[in-house]
Amino acid sequence: MSNTFGGALKLTIFGESHGAAIGAVLDGLAAGHLVDETYIAFQMDKRRARGGGLSTTRTEADKVKILSGVFNGRTTGTPVTLVIENQNTRSGDYAKTAGLARPGHADYTAHVKYAGFEDWRGGGHFSGRITAALTAAGALCQSILAGQGILLATHAARVAGLPDAPYAFDEAALRAQLEAVEKNPGFPVLDEAAGEKMQAAIRAAAAEGDSVGGILETAAVGLPAGLGQPFFDSVESELSHLLFSIPAIKAVEFGAGFGFAEMKGSEANDPLTVENGRVKALTNHCGGVNGGITSGMPLVFRTCVRPTSSIYKQQQTVDLSTNEPATLQIHGRHDPCILHRAAIVQTAATAFGLLDLLTQNGGEQRQAGR
Amino acid sequence: MSNTFGGALKLTIFGESHGAAIGAVLDGLAAGHLVDETYIAFQMDKRRARGGGLSTTRTEADKVKILSGVFNGRTTGTPVTLVIENQNTRSGDYAKTAGLARPGHADYTAHVKYAGFEDWRGGGHFSGRITAALTAAGALCQSILAGQGILLATHAARVAGLPDAPYAFDEAALRAQLEAVEKNPGFPVLDEAAGEKMQAAIRAAAAEGDSVGGILETAAVGLPAGLGQPFFDSVESELSHLLFSIPAIKAVEFGAGFGFAEMKGSEANDPLTVENGRVKALTNHCGGVNGGITSGMPLVFRTCVRPTSSIYKQQQTVDLSTNEPATLQIHGRHDPCILHRAAIVQTAATAFGLLDLLTQNGGEQRQAGR
Amino acid sequence: MSNTFGGALKLTIFGESHGAAIGAVLDGLAAGHLVDETYIAFQMDKRRARGGGLSTTRTEADKVKILSGVFNGRTTGTPVTLVIENQNTRSGDYAKTAGLARPGHADYTAHVKYAGFEDWRGGGHFSGRITAALTAAGALCQSILAGQGILLATHAARVAGLPDAPYAFDEAALRAQLEAVEKNPGFPVLDEAAGEKMQAAIRAAAAEGDSVGGILETAAVGLPAGLGQPFFDSVESELSHLLFSIPAIKAVEFGAGFGFAEMKGSEANDPLTVENGRVKALTNHCGGVNGGITSGMPLVFRTCVRPTSSIYKQQQTVDLSTNEPATLQIHGRHDPCILHRAAIVQTAATAFGLLDLLTQNGGEQRQAGR
Amino acid sequence: MSNTFGGALKLTIFGESHGAAIGAVLDGLAAGHLVDETYIAFQMDKRRARGGGLSTTRTEADKVKILSGVFNGRTTGTPVTLVIENQNTRSGDYAKTAGLARPGHADYTAHVKYAGFEDWRGGGHFSGRITAALTAAGALCQSILAGQGILLATHAARVAGLPDAPYAFDEAALRAQLEAVEKNPGFPVLDEAAGEKMQAAIRAAAAEGDSVGGILETAAVGLPAGLGQPFFDSVESELSHLLFSIPAIKAVEFGAGFGFAEMKGSEANDPLTVENGRVKALTNHCGGVNGGITSGMPLVFRTCVRPTSSIYKQQQTVDLSTNEPATLQIHGRHDPCILHRAAIVQTAATAFGLLDLLTQNGGEQRQAGR
Repeated sequence: MSNTFGGALKLTIFGESHGAAIGAVLDGLAAGHLVDETYIAFQMDKRRARGGGLSTTRTEADKVKILSGVFNGRTTGTPVTLVIENQNTRSGDYAKTAGLARPGHADYTAHVKYAGFEDWRGGGHFSGRITAALTAAGALCQSILAGQGILLATHAARVAGLPDAPYAFDEAALRAQLEAVEKNPGFPVLDEAAGEKMQAAIRAAAAEGDSVGGILETAAVGLPAGLGQPFFDSVESELSHLLFSIPAIKAVEFGAGFGFAEMKGSEANDPLTVENGRVKALTNHCGGVNGGITSGMPLVFRTCVRPTSSIYKQQQTVDLSTNEPATLQIHGRHDPCILHRAAIVQTAATAFGLLDLLTQNGGEQRQAGR
Repeated sequence: MSNTFGGALKLTIFGESHGAAIGAVLDGLAAGHLVDETYIAFQMDKRRARGGGLSTTRTEADKVKILSGVFNGRTTGTPVTLVIENQNTRSGDYAKTAGLARPGHADYTAHVKYAGFEDWRGGGHFSGRITAALTAAGALCQSILAGQGILLATHAARVAGLPDAPYAFDEAALRAQLEAVEKNPGFPVLDEAAGEKMQAAIRAAAAEGDSVGGILETAAVGLPAGLGQPFFDSVESELSHLLFSIPAIKAVEFGAGFGFAEMKGSEANDPLTVENGRVKALTNHCGGVNGGITSGMPLVFRTCVRPTSSIYKQQQTVDLSTNEPATLQIHGRHDPCILHRAAIVQTAATAFGLLDLLTQNGGEQRQAGR
Repeated sequence: MSNTFGGALKLTIFGESHGAAIGAVLDGLAAGHLVDETYIAFQMDKRRARGGGLSTTRTEADKVKILSGVFNGRTTGTPVTLVIENQNTRSGDYAKTAGLARPGHADYTAHVKYAGFEDWRGGGHFSGRITAALTAAGALCQSILAGQGILLATHAARVAGLPDAPYAFDEAALRAQLEAVEKNPGFPVLDEAAGEKMQAAIRAAAAEGDSVGGILETAAVGLPAGLGQPFFDSVESELSHLLFSIPAIKAVEFGAGFGFAEMKGSEANDPLTVENGRVKALTNHCGGVNGGITSGMPLVFRTCVRPTSSIYKQQQTVDLSTNEPATLQIHGRHDPCILHRAAIVQTAATAFGLLDLLTQNGGEQRQAGR
Repeated sequence: MSNTFGGALKLTIFGESHGAAIGAVLDGLAAGHLVDETYIAFQMDKRRARGGGLSTTRTEADKVKILSGVFNGRTTGTPVTLVIENQNTRSGDYAKTAGLARPGHADYTAHVKYAGFEDWRGGGHFSGRITAALTAAGALCQSILAGQGILLATHAARVAGLPDAPYAFDEAALRAQLEAVEKNPGFPVLDEAAGEKMQAAIRAAAAEGDSVGGILETAAVGLPAGLGQPFFDSVESELSHLLFSIPAIKAVEFGAGFGFAEMKGSEANDPLTVENGRVKALTNHCGGVNGGITSGMPLVFRTCVRPTSSIYKQQQTVDLSTNEPATLQIHGRHDPCILHRAAIVQTAATAFGLLDLLTQNGGEQRQAGR
């Protein structure tokens, strides 16, 4: 599938960091959904770099232009095409080191795969910039989910070894946390004090010409039980497929995740009960997914975002044009940390995946006359 | 896609734990590959429960019957259908607790999704038994990969908190480790002494009516650089999609995985060099994948397998037929740990994914006349 | 996709004419549909050869075994696997002419594609026998459609140059015709006298060692308006994709089809009116599909089935083992005409396609809260 | 899949007749193919309306802008995005009759499917204008095929009941015919005198406010034997799926097509022989495809294009806003015939389908080490 993904919904992504534009085609949205361009712009703004020592000084307006699929402010049922022009490109920064594979980046692997024809400027199609298109498409999905009572958000659970406050188990409290993160255009944490420490750590790493990584944690409330498909399209399969597409994400865990390795079955299993006529779990180690199907409990998962690969320290590498060892000194404009920007990308990817599963589920239920 | 997955190759899985049979249809294999039924049987045997206090006493011969796609011992190019009859079923064990959702299992979520029409016997389609079909299909892919010099295997890196020895960084040493694990029909560890301790811990948990989980680690050597597809079909996306389909897997990480959260960019980036004219990395934190594309270094990833959900301790749950709280006492035959059985399933899923990506890559290269 | 097709539903087909078994995996059926095995057997019986000078004397019981996806007589929501064992195979008939490519068959093309590893016995995977599995899967879809008031059937509109009576324009009259064809286990015509003439023509051709072709016409009533997907999944695209998979079908036309070439726009356009509050067309040249979307008028299309390629007259061909010209004299058991058998296959393929589109549509409508 | 189609290649189409732009994303092209924008522009020009009494007076520059996937004049291996801005829109023409469903168009069916939210201006997403994007993408595929010796073209075999000259059986003669049609920016016929008569008939129909239809015939030479996939992705299935997506196409036949209905098997089968060591057929009734797989003989198929639905004669219809009968008088700019413009669209769709099958085939062969 490559650059198109989905079941009932299809998302197609295109563009290069220093090309004319990046964009997305979102197919499968029903007709009649309101398209709130202000909301999309707000989400885009969260992903946008804003300098300040935390992000690259390449700041782009990231204005989303809708080329198709929207008429009189509503979806028409045909593909919605979202395009973002690239403006603030300084390809010259890259020309200086062209041919030198940047460690941690896809320069070498793309060079092999594309036999030297890849657009190497700014990482080309492998650049984090491509996620702007995913963010725009996801924002549209998010607003549709919100109309069905489904709220989701992502916080920086850990940056440079520093933890944020945890999500609440209580669903009402968790919903309040998610709303706060969602509305916050700044650093995405539950605990502002923790966020300050994280930002200080990022600035400290930047001062050394280095970068830091961390953990992003997403939660969604309001999801009905019964979403997801066996065998191959479990909720975890669909979401991890999307999440691992985001550059820099190298790990995904649901619920207790790797913590399950240290538990016994008697600790790991979530006991069930009935509350106001509705089945509820007393713990949520499974992260809201059992057997690949949503349980109606909050969906909770974490990803690991590696430290930005572009650093200003000298690195050992190879010159792809000569196939000889070389020394690399990166210049240009780069983020010392991308978690605060990647958070909305992760939310967006999740929103697309959930709306896809919801639509699939709707088709099945309708087929059976339910 | 649900029960069918893949790009150039398609794998379709079917069956229920206590139905007539389980099976797989593997489409996209080229004509002319040798089909070594002895090799398939050997891999099936690793997944097979063999009692001994480590596994369920439901032992199945798991004889794989090939219904189509093989002629005169070679693939014909048309779909290969592999069927395994269910024989040693004791549905009566489940009838006693029918209606009681087993915590940790998909009983409740399947009940909602399928509106009460699900085959609940032994977990139905959500049973780990379904992975026998995946194992058979994967074994066929593995033998094709082996013919191209690609070797892969999975060891139990951690069980009940006890670690196995690590994989070697040196590729020749790693290949030797993988060969040893591959050929070993017993407990899949690099260090036999560590394996003994793990098995003792499993038996101890079983004695308490409890279960344990752990971490499985897969490595593959001999992969060419350049496999994998941006944006949505990165190696990590394709493999995690498959891995999260395996029941009980709740976390997947590539290379340093969650460990990246504690690193700086200067530590995380793998420096490159040239060795005998070939680009090599001096470390392999990325696990052999950069930008979603293989680097030619060994592919390394880890998953977390939750403790078996079926335990003999009393559990709090709900009766799905009455929607009332209830107490569950599981009887029947269950595994106190499934890592040693799941290891080959993980290898099989990976083999399918890698052969799919190799075939896609072959098509592209051929299109370009390379 | 090769041997798997569909959007919300997926159908996977496997098997060879002289292999162990043929079968189908049907994924995407919701849970709770009644599975009427007697109805499936009735449809299978229509496809079954029954000798009598009209069909091959290779008669197979064609008993459908359900391996998965059905529990207590209802679908479970997981893949339904239908298997039919091959019993009455006489591969010896083929061994005599092995190596000689039979004109009109896929022998030569399969030989090139599969590099000589194809299962050539009885045409292998290219045999019309494979359509038995499609018929079984389609019968299940047909019974689900019937439950929603959608009725479809296929008659032999033309055999050996002899025409059957036409379908009625009036929907009630058409429904009566379709019911009659559906219930008739014999030669599928609207006018029995026309059918007698056709059968005589088939027997006459058979007496000369020759074969005849003809035209199959399918109609469906009760379809809601609004099914089908632009741009690439129009009703015509989805159905023609399925229809051209059926061996021997070489042409597909909807409504007036090729007849449009001789019309003016003023004749071709179907005028619209309102009848009992419902939009109706005064003519149905479009065959119930406008812009790729159903109009609520009856769906009507025709296919051309080529004369059976296996004839008893001597033919000029090549010996694939020597790449030399050769003379072929076919022996064995073959049909002098397959239209009466292919009719139910065409209905079955259509039923699958329509249920797929209905399920997709249901998902969209539910997504929008309609 | 809806607006995305393909196996190894994926084509995504978007846009509306009177929206901001239409476009296509073409994914799966290998890196390194030359992108000849002049060639693309030449193909676009054939599809472009040029008035003259044969086409609508809405003439668009149809300049193709490449947003991604091309670098230094060559494909990069990542998605190629082609966008064409809509400029010469006169939505006012449509506003006058808004609400009145135009017979023969998708107005009514889209209205039902999209619940009134469809972009009705100029037919929206159902407009023939969308095929401009398909033409651009197909032109790119065509130039890649040409590099491999595969040449294809489409002529108007019949317009308003008037026939063009037939394709030659001899491959060299056919290749010369295809080259001539390909290079000809004018009316696509083999016999210029026949083309003059057709154009006169179109102008005559236009003078009466009416329109005419006809038959388009495509041929391709240079295709290797062995392309195509059983069961569901036969060459006929893949191509018909694409062809029926083109607005106004209502019939597709391969080789003798519906003519097979009047033949005996002894006439229909193509005898084989060996010529210069290569297998050849003495006739080509199968149109170059046997069992869904290419035979190495020329691929030949025909489609029927219905008369343009927009005519200037008064028509009986319904008012969708009131659900009442109404009378429609179409104004605006419309084509009295679209065959000459649709010819290149048909070639383009075919080029995409063939390159997709070639790439799939390359993957299989490479997988097997051939």
